Amino acid sequence: MAFEIPPSLGVYGDEAIAKDILSRIWGKRGVFTCTVANTRTSTIPGVSEAGDTPELTMFTPAADAELLINGRVTCMKGIPINPGGIPTPATLTMAALDLSGMPYYIVNGGCGVIPSVPYFYTGGECGEKITTGKSVRNVRESYEKGYKLGEMLARAYDFVVISESCAGGTTTALAVMMAMGVIKENLVSSSSPKNPKELKSRLVAEAFEAAGITPGSLAEDPLRAIECVGDPMQPANVGILCGAAKSVPVIVGGGTQLSAVIACALKLHPEIAGSIIHGTTRWMMNDPNSSLVKIMEGISDKVPIVYINVDYSESPYEGLQAYEWGFIKEGVGCGGSSVACVVATSGKVTSKDLVDKVHEIYRGIMGYD
Amino acid sequence: MAFEIPPSLGVYGDEAIAKDILSRIWGKRGVFTCTVANTRTSTIPGVSEAGDTPELTMFTPAADAELLINGRVTCMKGIPINPGGIPTPATLTMAALDLSGMPYYIVNGGCGVIPSVPYFYTGGECGEKITTGKSVRNVRESYEKGYKLGEMLARAYDFVVISESCAGGTTTALAVMMAMGVIKENLVSSSSPKNPKELKSRLVAEAFEAAGITPGSLAEDPLRAIECVGDPMQPANVGILCGAAKSVPVIVGGGTQLSAVIACALKLHPEIAGSIIHGTTRWMMNDPNSSLVKIMEGISDKVPIVYINVDYSESPYEGLQAYEWGFIKEGVGCGGSSVACVVATSGKVTSKDLVDKVHEIYRGIMGYD
Repeated sequence: MAFEIPPSLGVYGDEAIAKDILSRIWGKRGVFTCTVANTRTSTIPGVSEAGDTPELTMFTPAADAELLINGRVTCMKGIPINPGGIPTPATLTMAALDLSGMPYYIVNGGCGVIPSVPYFYTGGECGEKITTGKSVRNVRESYEKGYKLGEMLARAYDFVVISESCAGGTTTALAVMMAMGVIKENLVSSSSPKNPKELKSRLVAEAFEAAGITPGSLAEDPLRAIECVGDPMQPANVGILCGAAKSVPVIVGGGTQLSAVIACALKLHPEIAGSIIHGTTRWMMNDPNSSLVKIMEGISDKVPIVYINVDYSESPYEGLQAYEWGFIKEGVGCGGSSVACVVATSGKVTSKDLVDKVHEIYRGIMGYD
Repeated sequence: MAFEIPPSLGVYGDEAIAKDILSRIWGKRGVFTCTVANTRTSTIPGVSEAGDTPELTMFTPAADAELLINGRVTCMKGIPINPGGIPTPATLTMAALDLSGMPYYIVNGGCGVIPSVPYFYTGGECGEKITTGKSVRNVRESYEKGYKLGEMLARAYDFVVISESCAGGTTTALAVMMAMGVIKENLVSSSSPKNPKELKSRLVAEAFEAAGITPGSLAEDPLRAIECVGDPMQPANVGILCGAAKSVPVIVGGGTQLSAVIACALKLHPEIAGSIIHGTTRWMMNDPNSSLVKIMEGISDKVPIVYINVDYSESPYEGLQAYEWGFIKEGVGCGGSSVACVVATSGKVTSKDLVDKVHEIYRGIMGYD
């Protein structure tokens, strides 16, 4: 019988590849990883709203890791919120991990603020502002250890989910993809509906000048592109993706930040196309201010997007309704983990179940019960 | 039908508990962890033979980790050997991991020499000489993150194996167990048949004076005992053991170093007795110069020892035959991983298969093929 995609999931791109991959991992055992990292790019005023102030954006990755692993945040007060009190997408990730029973691990790609959790470490360090033109150290080491970690995870599970929490990461994604020439214009997303596109483009231009590179000049050297203008989440995740996808399917969970990871990985290991899907949210697909679809079309026609049809429009909480107004949309692997949850439970868990669980988690965190 | 223990395994102690645990995890999915750490105690001449010279003992844990994960050593030349060319017990661990297909992870408990592998990190740092009386920093942090890691592993697997590579670790084990009063005399093992018992006892006495403690004075505070006179492998492993054993069985793989871990864990969480077995080798059980049995009798009558009946006496290689003469005997979880291999494969892999695979691995490493 042909494999049917359930209504909780949507597919964009090559449906045959999507169905092939989904049918191979349907009801199977996956593992979720979230790579947390900092780039000081997030502290440039206006770049990131993943945090209540520019300085607080440095705490967001660690806080997300603590929330996922410990259920509470200790590196700062409260939980990561965007200005206006919109809660971190980790709330949806927590729901997906809870309902799937999937094991999950944090990877420290290179943090300035260290999360108080056990984590996998691949040798990365906190990233600098991209305007330095020397934004990531230890790129090859982190890639190679990430690759080995990908192999190790693929040994233990039927599929692997990778994701990120890295404030400022859409700007570094834009820079890396432009350095590689896979995009020519600013199509990346933002955690705000008022995507500060001009600022991001200006910073990328400054970064290119500092690094002595031009758009497309690093088409053949993705690790060098990361070194110049990327962030430390990227080499770790490129490594995990390449190391895992040669033997098991990988759900690359996230928005345009993860498109950059896919672009780098496919340049280093083109043979993994056909084993990866880009897992994200309906919110990301509907974003009028960015285009994951256009970006992915520039990278490969063999990486379908699979998104979770979550809908917060009926939510009684304004902080969650805001997701429907274009806030946040992605992050902490909320889309990838939700897709993985539907897959691992053979569709028994639906997008509706996920939203119900998010409400429960949100009430718990906010002390509403 | 009653569970039968296969001839590849031997049991000492409470056979009912051993059979109960083995039958619960027979043919199930386990995960192997090896916690690597350094204590500068190993550089005191005469303390450790886990390395060709006192200085090289600092490289042994990192080299063991690299051998397990990468199949080759990059932090030093060659592989860890004892004086005389006897290869690290990691060779047996590699055989067990290969034949079982079990996933495996390195935990960095606190290394001075960092292994070039991806590892779990729990916040520990390289340990000082125990004669300082302040031998381990961040004990509570490492214990708590280890505990969380144990919970995370137990979520993903049916049983967990913990182990160590920490040169100098029998001296710190002796010190911690004497501080807790669970042993009154020096019963710990050594990687040499000429166990330097007097030296170890003298160092422990010096350490106690420096720390201002007396035998048994820290009976109720195992984490403080580690802080004063232990090593950084201990708090990470005590944490993993306590965190995992509350929900799945744990095979505590190793010799007398792991007895100290069990002693600490049972003091903090006595309820885990009945869920743990001490997994080791026939060589360790036959050691005339130490007594794992006596030590464990002082700790608990509810933690059976299960050992693998490996026998190198017919080996064509002198370096391996030396194990029969009392060299090495344990380390890098060689006993625990071997027991786990028999268990995970429902007894399909025998101790004879393990020895054959060790020969293959040894030939590859030594370039004999």
